[in-house]
Amino acid sequence: MTNYIDQNKERFLGELIELLKIPSISAKTEHKADMERCAEFVKRKLLSIGCTHAELCPTAGNPIVYGELIKNPTLPTVLIYGHYDVQPPEPLELWDFPPFEPVIKDGNIYARGACDDKGQFYMHLLAVETLVAQNNLDCNVKFMIEGEEEIGSNNLGIFVKANTQKLKSDIILISDTAILSNDCPSITVGLRGLSYLEVEVTGPNKDLHSGIYGGAVANPINTLCEMIAKMKNDKGEITIPGFYDDVVQLTAEERKALNEAPFDLDAYKKFLDIDEIKGEEGYTTVERTAIRPTFDLNGIWGGYTGEGAKTVLPSKAYAKLSMRLVPNQNSEKITELFTKHFLSIAPKSVKVKVTPHHGGEPAVTPTDTKAYRVASKAFEEIWGKKPIPTREGGSIPIVALFEQELKVKTLLMGFGLNSDNIHSPNEHYGIFNYIMGIKTIVKFFENYNKVD
Amino acid sequence: MTNYIDQNKERFLGELIELLKIPSISAKTEHKADMERCAEFVKRKLLSIGCTHAELCPTAGNPIVYGELIKNPTLPTVLIYGHYDVQPPEPLELWDFPPFEPVIKDGNIYARGACDDKGQFYMHLLAVETLVAQNNLDCNVKFMIEGEEEIGSNNLGIFVKANTQKLKSDIILISDTAILSNDCPSITVGLRGLSYLEVEVTGPNKDLHSGIYGGAVANPINTLCEMIAKMKNDKGEITIPGFYDDVVQLTAEERKALNEAPFDLDAYKKFLDIDEIKGEEGYTTVERTAIRPTFDLNGIWGGYTGEGAKTVLPSKAYAKLSMRLVPNQNSEKITELFTKHFLSIAPKSVKVKVTPHHGGEPAVTPTDTKAYRVASKAFEEIWGKKPIPTREGGSIPIVALFEQELKVKTLLMGFGLNSDNIHSPNEHYGIFNYIMGIKTIVKFFENYNKVD
Repeated sequence: MTNYIDQNKERFLGELIELLKIPSISAKTEHKADMERCAEFVKRKLLSIGCTHAELCPTAGNPIVYGELIKNPTLPTVLIYGHYDVQPPEPLELWDFPPFEPVIKDGNIYARGACDDKGQFYMHLLAVETLVAQNNLDCNVKFMIEGEEEIGSNNLGIFVKANTQKLKSDIILISDTAILSNDCPSITVGLRGLSYLEVEVTGPNKDLHSGIYGGAVANPINTLCEMIAKMKNDKGEITIPGFYDDVVQLTAEERKALNEAPFDLDAYKKFLDIDEIKGEEGYTTVERTAIRPTFDLNGIWGGYTGEGAKTVLPSKAYAKLSMRLVPNQNSEKITELFTKHFLSIAPKSVKVKVTPHHGGEPAVTPTDTKAYRVASKAFEEIWGKKPIPTREGGSIPIVALFEQELKVKTLLMGFGLNSDNIHSPNEHYGIFNYIMGIKTIVKFFENYNKVD
Repeated sequence: MTNYIDQNKERFLGELIELLKIPSISAKTEHKADMERCAEFVKRKLLSIGCTHAELCPTAGNPIVYGELIKNPTLPTVLIYGHYDVQPPEPLELWDFPPFEPVIKDGNIYARGACDDKGQFYMHLLAVETLVAQNNLDCNVKFMIEGEEEIGSNNLGIFVKANTQKLKSDIILISDTAILSNDCPSITVGLRGLSYLEVEVTGPNKDLHSGIYGGAVANPINTLCEMIAKMKNDKGEITIPGFYDDVVQLTAEERKALNEAPFDLDAYKKFLDIDEIKGEEGYTTVERTAIRPTFDLNGIWGGYTGEGAKTVLPSKAYAKLSMRLVPNQNSEKITELFTKHFLSIAPKSVKVKVTPHHGGEPAVTPTDTKAYRVASKAFEEIWGKKPIPTREGGSIPIVALFEQELKVKTLLMGFGLNSDNIHSPNEHYGIFNYIMGIKTIVKFFENYNKVD
């Protein structure tokens, strides 16, 4: 197996580069045609590696690529999930290379989607290609690669609910997370949920001269800032009434275990060039990003933002904001609580509109399953080290839905690094991680019928 | 005189429309050539109305148009100041017409600069044309029309200091303010000063995934909002230490007189479509915009502001902000106080940069001068009503400088309306005001040598 992968390494890289050239940005409707083109690319590859069936399943949004390789209905079935859509690349000026013209430098592939998730889901297609080529696949495999993960997977939810039989499987395998480091492989066993919203604050019904009206009329930017500032107290706690009601408090032992993962604060601060970290009082950095919910502004805009100065008292100010959620918070409930609270703190001098974007539920994946043991063994054999179970701060909203609708557990076997700049300029993915990932996935499949 | 103006009304409008077509936006360097073109337009007109000399005076920025019509050195000299630069037109989508394609509708000329200040300064050129055509000018006239008023008049300040002899005059006349209404003419006797700055808050050195880092690293947008919120207390007072130290407190009588100007709160709220006004406790709306300083955000931006959602924890957040100042606050001192205070409230988890844009001093113009009496009489004769002295909330920073450097008083005889949307989309200027303004200015000149 190792031979096949090493011999085909250049081609494996070349195919990924072609995939990365397609600007499949789901957040922007102008890329509708690119989404179709990207989905077709994935479908063609599925057919070429031996899938007995592959199709683009239409949705109200971007198509879902479905494929299956059924060896024998009596064999166990692994369902592979991934997403071919990517985050918007902005701010473009901070990229060293154009985001959709992949470049290989210092052992990394630089491009939007290199790690999240094109580079990671494509490893599975190549792993199955390897197994088929070597006549070494003794599972059934199903693929479900969607195009709306970065905008909330709403249509995938509908698709999953409508196709529980088609998606029948024993385990769902996802590579869309990170390992702690290349020296310290890990398997993600927890994900945060998400509630994403947009707010609009309107003061006067038109932009005004800040001299003529300033001081007498509510400024929507000042007001928005004041409202945002009220969302956290001095301890860094979120002030929405009821926000923490459903948060599962970990035991002292669980927190101790969580904090045993290697973490170098100095290196962390240096990587981010910050003098001090900042977060909720009473929790470590590992805890703040794993088991505690957040309230972050993702974007803000209003008034004059061009060159020079404009003495305007603007009509409107806007923000995009999101809360990461932890078990057992529910995104719909949190969205409601936020909306109610945010409207309640609005002064009467402004009008406030709250628009939910999308949400997703937090998830904890079990470590006492056959799949986890198989994955752990695969890591040990390929990486030479037993992987550590970790909780990740990001969200894959669909994990909770899979369990609810399909009654199937998910295994989060990702190979990225937190320094891969996903969702940021200069996103990249290590070629080492790409190749090691393919090998680990092959090993997972080879062992799946051998481990109890 | 009235005959000449009425007979030439269409041409007077046509010339203004040509002037308004030039996008002379001083805040944007890309409009450098338009600035030159606009200055040339003004110079040509000055020569055509009988100026004995006209020139473009180069500066480090945009040229100043200077012209003079010296009848007799023994006669009094009126210096007319105005500005040919305009505010940026953004947000463009809120304009009913393109901002540099003037449209006449319902008795108004719609275009950026229609009122501020092209429509207003051009009245003076037409008034002088009228006087010259009727051989009725018995003053000397000087014109100084600059191209950087909207960005702080820094180069005009240098020019004025270097040319005190050239600018020697008995009174400076400016039309760049508003009257209370067409039923209630007024003369502006006070202006606020201005301190305009830009701030930049940097959290991590790169945009981050809000899931992986959210909750553990300072979010620069949240932090900026928290810092802005701290700049005012619950009473709407600005919290910068020392901010109010130099503010002149008016006597009860002065405040009473100020509040006698007609003000209809219901109409004000209706015009702005607001349910409640908002401002510093203990002051009326008239006072809040006339004799009290302000702290307003003029623009804010950071993170992802495009379509859809992006779960980013951004590296940077920015704001443009300004404080309107009242006698005897000093803009340099306030800029320093702001900077010191803003940096002092920055948490160590972020880096903050403060960049001053420009400033200007507040001014009070006297009502016990010959020029004020002449202007008041001109209003009475043309409008049929004695004008009310008012204080305006806007800033014309150069007024304080004129008095300091030239030792000459300024008369603010503006003809705009506060509803003209200056600095906003759909800026317009009433044709009634344009024609009445020309007539009032002509009357001012006719009376200037007759009133004591």
